[in-house]
Amino acid sequence: MKIIIVGASGTIGKQIVSAFEKEHEVIRVGSKSGDIQADITDPASLENMFRQLKSFDALVSATGAAYFGPWEQTTDQEYRIGVNSKLMGQVNLVLIGQHYINQKGSFTLTSGILSNDPVRGGSNASMVNGAINSFVKAASVELKDGVRINAVSPNVVEDSPEYFPFFPGEIPVAMKEVTAAYVKSVLGAATGKVLEIH
Amino acid sequence: MKIIIVGASGTIGKQIVSAFEKEHEVIRVGSKSGDIQADITDPASLENMFRQLKSFDALVSATGAAYFGPWEQTTDQEYRIGVNSKLMGQVNLVLIGQHYINQKGSFTLTSGILSNDPVRGGSNASMVNGAINSFVKAASVELKDGVRINAVSPNVVEDSPEYFPFFPGEIPVAMKEVTAAYVKSVLGAATGKVLEIH
Ligand SMILES: NC(=O)c1ccc[n+]([C@@H]2O[C@H](COP(=O)([O-])OP(=O)(O)OC[C@H]3O[C@@H](n4cnc5c(N)ncnc54)[C@H](OP(=O)(O)O)[C@@H]3O)[C@@H](O)[C@H]2O)c1
Ligand SMILES: NC(=O)c1ccc[n+]([C@@H]2O[C@H](COP(=O)([O-])OP(=O)(O)OC[C@H]3O[C@@H](n4cnc5c(N)ncnc54)[C@H](OP(=O)(O)O)[C@@H]3O)[C@@H](O)[C@H]2O)c1
Repeated sequence: MKIIIVGASGTIGKQIVSAFEKEHEVIRVGSKSGDIQADITDPASLENMFRQLKSFDALVSATGAAYFGPWEQTTDQEYRIGVNSKLMGQVNLVLIGQHYINQKGSFTLTSGILSNDPVRGGSNASMVNGAINSFVKAASVELKDGVRINAVSPNVVEDSPEYFPFFPGEIPVAMKEVTAAYVKSVLGAATGKVLEIH
Repeated sequence: MKIIIVGASGTIGKQIVSAFEKEHEVIRVGSKSGDIQADITDPASLENMFRQLKSFDALVSATGAAYFGPWEQTTDQEYRIGVNSKLMGQVNLVLIGQHYINQKGSFTLTSGILSNDPVRGGSNASMVNGAINSFVKAASVELKDGVRINAVSPNVVEDSPEYFPFFPGEIPVAMKEVTAAYVKSVLGAATGKVLEIH
């Protein structure tokens, strides 16, 4: 399979690469790193990436920024960080990528536990994660030719100790479990599902 | 109580007005109609509205557009309709309104059944509704001085026959039930909840 991994150099992305690279053709994408550069916040850049790659069997997105900061000073401007990056960046990977994906292909996006279980300062990420979860449900009834779509929703992961202070009382989840969810989405039969590793 | 109703002239909004206007001071808001005009897609217009009203006890939003149309031709541009109107319009009512709301006040936003139960052509609305549901959960842990926030998530309502063809097999919900959910949110104790009328 030809598998595009967006955010391949990231904490989660590099584990996903490891899980697939032995048996599949993996194309690593980042805004600065990877085999090919593309900026998820810019639809023209994504269109350009897909045009270069011509076709693919699976796309995994493990990327996307959202704003974290004091609620009371948060405005439209800060909220647009999550809207333009983690939300519309991932949505545009699908809206554009659908025209390049092979039959029976799959899209796997990343949301996160904050959609259901908010933390202080994280409302932008909560909103975006909830949006991604509902988006994959809706897109799953639209995609044709057996193309599937799911989201993986991780809790804070064991390899991101810098985030632990923002998730009091959460037991960080094992990278092995998180990576397995992406493998399940790509190689399994599920569609329109949110795979929760909480 | 001084209650701001955004979308007061709409199918749902006018029922909400009826439910509150006998016992409360109701301020009707629309982009063209109402006691005061404000455009939810423009944060400056919302700031201006709140500055004129000075303070309030409850804000109910029953407004916001999203794109409906053929999935395969949908791009970032169409998705921005829902993002800028029903999503960020309602979010900005809260981000800005928090600085004008009285202690123990409340915000009530509107999402809809499509977050969980998608229909063809409605993915933009699904995404936005999921975002609003997660936003109210996150905002509920942030708002101070006893200020509450909830979302009402209606199925297609009996007074909107023009939408029936898009919701095959759904039994339209009674306006009385939908209106009651807004009353419960404003006068009750719930916060961080999605009141589903499905
Ligand atoms: N880490 C966690 O505990 C955790 C938990 C739950 C959910 N998540 C979610 O999982 C996703 C990945 O998280 P992570 O911690 O693995 O991220 P990370 O370590 O910061 O890695 C981000 C990756 O995305 C790429 N990237 C950044 N901006 C980009 C852009 N504009 N266009 C294309 N690629 C871009 C980066 O490569 P370049 O530098 O080359 O751009 C990098 O490969 C995020 O959506 C995050 O919210 C993470
Ligand atoms: N109807 C249903 O079956 C149904 C089901 C589930 C969810 N919903 C949701 O419930 C909400 C209300 O639906 P509805 O059918 O009652 O809507 P509607 O009848 O179309 O009414 C819309 C209201 O919003 C106001 N409005 C429109 N654009 C605005 C803007 N930019 N800024 C401020 N106000 C604006 C309109 O007044 P002006 O013309 O003066 O701007 C009007 O009062 C929407 O979010 C909809 O998605 C509806």
